[in-house]
Amino acid sequence: MSDAALQAIAELKPLLGDRIVTSEAVREHHSRDTSRLKPHLPDAVAFPQCEEEVQAIVRACAAHGVPVVPFGAGSSMEGHTIPVRGGISLDTRDMNRVVEVKAEDFLAVVQPGVTRKQLNTHLRDTGLMFSVDPGADASIGGMASTRGSGTTAVRYGTMRENVLALRVVTPDGTVIRTGSRARKSSTGYDLTHLFVGAEGTLGVITEVTVRLHPIPEAVSSAICHFESVRSAVEAVIATVQYGIPVARVEFLDEVAIAATNSYSNLDLNVAPTLFFEFHGTPNWVAEQARIAEEIARDCGGADFRWSTDPEERSRLWQARHDIFWATKAIKPGYDIYTGDICVPISQLADSIIAARDDIDASPLTGQIIGHVGDGNYHTAYLIDPDNPEDLAEAERLADRLVERALAVGGTASGEHGIGTGKLKFMRQEHGEAIDLMKRIKAALDPAGIMNPGKMGQGG
Amino acid sequence: MSDAALQAIAELKPLLGDRIVTSEAVREHHSRDTSRLKPHLPDAVAFPQCEEEVQAIVRACAAHGVPVVPFGAGSSMEGHTIPVRGGISLDTRDMNRVVEVKAEDFLAVVQPGVTRKQLNTHLRDTGLMFSVDPGADASIGGMASTRGSGTTAVRYGTMRENVLALRVVTPDGTVIRTGSRARKSSTGYDLTHLFVGAEGTLGVITEVTVRLHPIPEAVSSAICHFESVRSAVEAVIATVQYGIPVARVEFLDEVAIAATNSYSNLDLNVAPTLFFEFHGTPNWVAEQARIAEEIARDCGGADFRWSTDPEERSRLWQARHDIFWATKAIKPGYDIYTGDICVPISQLADSIIAARDDIDASPLTGQIIGHVGDGNYHTAYLIDPDNPEDLAEAERLADRLVERALAVGGTASGEHGIGTGKLKFMRQEHGEAIDLMKRIKAALDPAGIMNPGKMGQGG
Repeated sequence: MSDAALQAIAELKPLLGDRIVTSEAVREHHSRDTSRLKPHLPDAVAFPQCEEEVQAIVRACAAHGVPVVPFGAGSSMEGHTIPVRGGISLDTRDMNRVVEVKAEDFLAVVQPGVTRKQLNTHLRDTGLMFSVDPGADASIGGMASTRGSGTTAVRYGTMRENVLALRVVTPDGTVIRTGSRARKSSTGYDLTHLFVGAEGTLGVITEVTVRLHPIPEAVSSAICHFESVRSAVEAVIATVQYGIPVARVEFLDEVAIAATNSYSNLDLNVAPTLFFEFHGTPNWVAEQARIAEEIARDCGGADFRWSTDPEERSRLWQARHDIFWATKAIKPGYDIYTGDICVPISQLADSIIAARDDIDASPLTGQIIGHVGDGNYHTAYLIDPDNPEDLAEAERLADRLVERALAVGGTASGEHGIGTGKLKFMRQEHGEAIDLMKRIKAALDPAGIMNPGKMGQGG
Repeated sequence: MSDAALQAIAELKPLLGDRIVTSEAVREHHSRDTSRLKPHLPDAVAFPQCEEEVQAIVRACAAHGVPVVPFGAGSSMEGHTIPVRGGISLDTRDMNRVVEVKAEDFLAVVQPGVTRKQLNTHLRDTGLMFSVDPGADASIGGMASTRGSGTTAVRYGTMRENVLALRVVTPDGTVIRTGSRARKSSTGYDLTHLFVGAEGTLGVITEVTVRLHPIPEAVSSAICHFESVRSAVEAVIATVQYGIPVARVEFLDEVAIAATNSYSNLDLNVAPTLFFEFHGTPNWVAEQARIAEEIARDCGGADFRWSTDPEERSRLWQARHDIFWATKAIKPGYDIYTGDICVPISQLADSIIAARDDIDASPLTGQIIGHVGDGNYHTAYLIDPDNPEDLAEAERLADRLVERALAVGGTASGEHGIGTGKLKFMRQEHGEAIDLMKRIKAALDPAGIMNPGKMGQGG
């Protein structure tokens, strides 16, 4: 450990006591995320319980030039929380209080360690929900930092649309507020959106004000099979063009469907498939499903099955949510390597087909699922953890995915973020705008202590 | 004129010819906006026709330390385009080409001088629309710079939600791209949102990629009177809580209704009134109107009239759109001084009532209208242009409006922006975050040539 880190830790000990930890086990837990990227140990892990403690940690680290790496639920997928230059991993686990719910204003104020499921449990009796659902029970601070989204973004938006305001400890220990409780504002640079997606490189988020949405009176689900990826994507585009506010529309390719049949004991046709969900009044969800069915049939879809029955619905969507485990079950003992891109929806069919061709031409097994209403999809490659060639091949396929996405005006990551895993694509995607990002990073964090080696420095 | 400005103009003359103008009339036109703020003449007005010419102008100004003040349609309301330190007014009038419409991707790419009406005319046969409607036929570059919105924001969002990507000439003349054509992305600092609302202080927007929305199959309108402001606002909150995706919901107070009756030859009850608009399928708009009616009645609303008849609909909404002229007609020869705030919707009724009380206690006549689904409303004070006391009184009332909004967690401007008119509230609203804004401004525009004396410097 460096002298600087030792000094910062020693200074924080009287304040934090046993909430600043240097044990191997805790450091190890904070050395990695869910990705296969190379772990790196922090020098210590701090568990602040309030904003003042976050300030103290940041100030001590600033004084000694020690890195601060914010850590939420640890569910990030591109190495965001890996302390690649050591320093203190700042775990917001204990800042897990729902500060306030204002139902009339459709907002909740939470500490960053509150998870999305915790918030929705808390909201139980309000008739409102927090809509963003990235799959994992991520912390809301982490989701804001990663600009996370998931299956409902097509209707309710990503964290970009659902964060109204923040409190942030900046790299010199100052607390700032960004945004307000007003739904819209034309005053000042949009700092909220600068911190949303900054992956902890510009400060530590200590409070998040999120938008809430009414829980729909009725929900209907539908599932439909298609002859080809192209006809499935055409159906999605036509449905949105019709003005149907699809709440979720998920694509699963044949491999994903076969895995799901096997794992979830279903008998779905093994074909490119769309899962739809519609929200609204009972009449309106029925009408949405009818219109979507008609459009799907026009696009060659078959076996359109829809249901408002909660049990049937939840069985289908549970199968969708279990796709990770279903895929893992294809080859027991294998790991999953995940790709994530987003393209203009006009490019989506070609993009998925090329990704599928790539997998078919490769020795790896893989499937494709997508939040296709947004043009965002994921590949999942099964790799033998003991075979480095598998990892190299998965990386090669995921990189090709990104290269093709960038070539058609897409982005290197739809929702998983940059972390360290995708730094190499930053300049290719953003061109000279990278230099602006670096100037902003340097202006706001001149000593470079906030999550160094990530966005704003590398790339 | 300064030597620096003379030199910059001389350097640009060979490139721009008679598209760089120093005549009194043209400079005078670019010395003001629609506000009553003190005009200031630019040294010259430039009319670039392409991005390269914008680069040349910015580079020449950067070389000589001459201010560059972007100018769109000149419809801003807080002095945004007033060249308070002289320099070159960069008028995007001639950069008015719709570059591309990609219907499948629900987006259009436009040059900054394209106006919203021009774009919607261009989209005529696509089944799509550009939704943001600030009233004036503003340029889309200007609307992006001001983070503009209007009546449809409650359903379709403001410019914040409707700008996907930008091209920007930065203060050193570099062209950068921000965002992409993908609907969502988790890569890099959100520069798009940094430029949206920056009011031309960080660069010149040279291209805007905007989201398009399907034109609804059916539209229904409704109008309803209430006993009090409070019951009208309760009806709005309950309607949104029910999950009704209101397309527009506009509030008019008694004075506004009386003026409208007189100007538009209507016989509406002189009472606090809501204008609703619903978008969807024919069934769905009918159901939305029925539910809204039921909720309105529960809140004490009366005379709920709804119509899907285009003529009746357009007569009512035309009356709403003509409210500026109706208000002006109350006192012929008088000017209108406009207030603009946004508050959390739970605070909206109290806020409007206090604003009404303020007007009633003042010698001025005034009305209140609001985009109440967002908590945003405007006051309009009638002032005698020859009586400076009227202007002072209007300023006092508008300032009190902002003070009260800030005290309850609102914002100093819902949609009109800061310009020079509201700079004085920036620190009160944003606190220490102002220092961050100044650091960003200094990092991106170290010489301070972009629209100086506005956001990022003053306040």
